[in-house]
Amino acid sequence: MVATRVALRQEARRREVLTAATAVFSARGYRASAMSDVAEELGMGKASLYHYVGSKEEILVELYEDVLRENVIAARRIADSDRPARQALHDLIADRAAYTCRNRDLLRVFFENEAELPAREQARLIAVRNEYEQTLLDLLARGAAADEFALPTTPGILVNTALGAANWAYKWYRPDGPLTPEQLGAEIASLVLASLTAP
Amino acid sequence: MVATRVALRQEARRREVLTAATAVFSARGYRASAMSDVAEELGMGKASLYHYVGSKEEILVELYEDVLRENVIAARRIADSDRPARQALHDLIADRAAYTCRNRDLLRVFFENEAELPAREQARLIAVRNEYEQTLLDLLARGAAADEFALPTTPGILVNTALGAANWAYKWYRPDGPLTPEQLGAEIASLVLASLTAP
Repeated sequence: MVATRVALRQEARRREVLTAATAVFSARGYRASAMSDVAEELGMGKASLYHYVGSKEEILVELYEDVLRENVIAARRIADSDRPARQALHDLIADRAAYTCRNRDLLRVFFENEAELPAREQARLIAVRNEYEQTLLDLLARGAAADEFALPTTPGILVNTALGAANWAYKWYRPDGPLTPEQLGAEIASLVLASLTAP
Repeated sequence: MVATRVALRQEARRREVLTAATAVFSARGYRASAMSDVAEELGMGKASLYHYVGSKEEILVELYEDVLRENVIAARRIADSDRPARQALHDLIADRAAYTCRNRDLLRVFFENEAELPAREQARLIAVRNEYEQTLLDLLARGAAADEFALPTTPGILVNTALGAANWAYKWYRPDGPLTPEQLGAEIASLVLASLTAP
């Protein structure tokens, strides 16, 4: 019981460290940020910080894993449901855009620091990202095979264009604007899927 | 005559400095790059480098100006021609995506270092970017007024979605792939404008 409570508290504190690091990396840039900046953001001593995370690099890898894990889980959940391929594609792109709007600082760090990942982790993380993109490619193939729609271009161009449209929201979504992340996500998904016309 | 030749040589050398700086900033990140890295890339002494540019910050501002100037000029040229609004929108987005594919290193620096611009320059550069976006908004308004198409969502969402789709190509375009920048640009433009249906 006590051991569990300690582990939970440790884990909660670790999440706080990741959140603070996201804010610091997003504002100052990953390379220019020091662990002492993260400690300061938390009002914590630098030595205490190392009780929760091993290094700045370890934090970056964990942020990438968090984003990829959350997106892959969401993509699988949507793709494995019974909705038609077109609806699944819409929901998946809308979900991705909404996630981006809700986590702009995190996505700034994610999109702008790929080159900073340690080489030994890059291949593994790229494989997870490819798994995510494969879900979209599979849905396009499924919908085309079922004559739900015709593909206007190669599946690869379609997926990258759709993801670009969704991801770019980290740069321009304003939380104080008229739309919720979910509403904007649905708008973006409808726009990019308008090219999927009747076969 | 001699003065002109000297000025031309000075300008050519300055362009070389900007090109080298683009490669260095793109590979290492702007913050982590030093002027000595740029000098080394050129095989030039650091003191000689300062003969052509005043500071790292001055280089960054000039790179932003180059990108914005080139894009605004291209946008005006397309918008001011007699083509119908829909064709002009297509050509403008295709041009933007092709430019992005041809200048991936430069656009990486451009998209990922907005926060590094000196405050006194930011407002001015954002005004130029807004001018570029206004050209797209004007074309959407012109096409809708002429009943060329109906707008499926707000003009702002449409413009940001289209630019996101075009800009994202800096991350995934491969020069050794099957498409030229111009071909991919045309594909992306067709995809994002498919949402503009008959009124």
